[in-house]
Amino acid sequence: MNNELSFIFSRRSVRTYQPKEVGPELVQNLLESAMAAPSAVAKDPWEFLVIRERSTLARIASGLPNGGLLADAAVGIVVCGDLTRAHDHQLSYLLQDCSAAIENLLLAAQALGLGGCWLGVHPREDRVAHIRQLLAVPEQVIPVAVIAVGWPAESPAPRTRYRAEAVHYETW
Amino acid sequence: MNNELSFIFSRRSVRTYQPKEVGPELVQNLLESAMAAPSAVAKDPWEFLVIRERSTLARIASGLPNGGLLADAAVGIVVCGDLTRAHDHQLSYLLQDCSAAIENLLLAAQALGLGGCWLGVHPREDRVAHIRQLLAVPEQVIPVAVIAVGWPAESPAPRTRYRAEAVHYETW
Repeated sequence: MNNELSFIFSRRSVRTYQPKEVGPELVQNLLESAMAAPSAVAKDPWEFLVIRERSTLARIASGLPNGGLLADAAVGIVVCGDLTRAHDHQLSYLLQDCSAAIENLLLAAQALGLGGCWLGVHPREDRVAHIRQLLAVPEQVIPVAVIAVGWPAESPAPRTRYRAEAVHYETW
Repeated sequence: MNNELSFIFSRRSVRTYQPKEVGPELVQNLLESAMAAPSAVAKDPWEFLVIRERSTLARIASGLPNGGLLADAAVGIVVCGDLTRAHDHQLSYLLQDCSAAIENLLLAAQALGLGGCWLGVHPREDRVAHIRQLLAVPEQVIPVAVIAVGWPAESPAPRTRYRAEAVHYETW
């Protein structure tokens, strides 16, 4: 793995956190990073809910399998997409744009010494409904994922999951 | 913008390229970066076609609006997802996984001094069919995007498209 790319290989899902606050300027950095992602026709349909309230994080967690780690995360960032703003109102573009933004956010967290974990919401209807109801997310806005962020209490080793069989040259 | 995150803010769509080859070890770095992305339940449903053949790049371009820049790109990387390998066979997870991989690939390109541009394929049925037929992509594999890569002939300034209105605290 090329050392110049360690910012990518070092990003691992971090699921345990130190009991320590993540300041608002760091969260601002994460959001600026997320919104630097590419977006189809630059529609930027993404929306972000920043949750620090412990009781809200616990309630979000209760609707997500493997969401328990939110109980120890300093912040939860709910990433949504507004279908009316997505290019051609297409769910596919909304998901692509939000996912690129999430990856930027996770890489930024890693680069700032934080740890993060991507908790899936879409396409599970029960999870979408749970988040929507809990956080008063409007009908046209689709919760895609919740990103847990905190100071890491574990340091998974850098890696790639490169598979040569996934690479095809010139044609399938 | 935090300087520690310049690897994110410096990634811009690069649409003009120098007439210069991109070596196979650099392409390998890009693919290792792409396959270091998070993936729902680590299913890694992504597949990559690496295209250098000029006539193939021209044919891909003919089916993509704004695909003309592929004519000058050193490499085109077609990113696809295998629906049978995606978590729970869900298109949403396939798109999320592939988009995170694409963002890693684009950030890696930028960090290596290369430039890249994300050309949308899915959900446009005509573009999907064009790529599928041209490159013999199997039925269960969905072409998501084509990434043009080359040595940049332009250097767009770093930026974020941060919008304060896209950020909500504690609830919508």
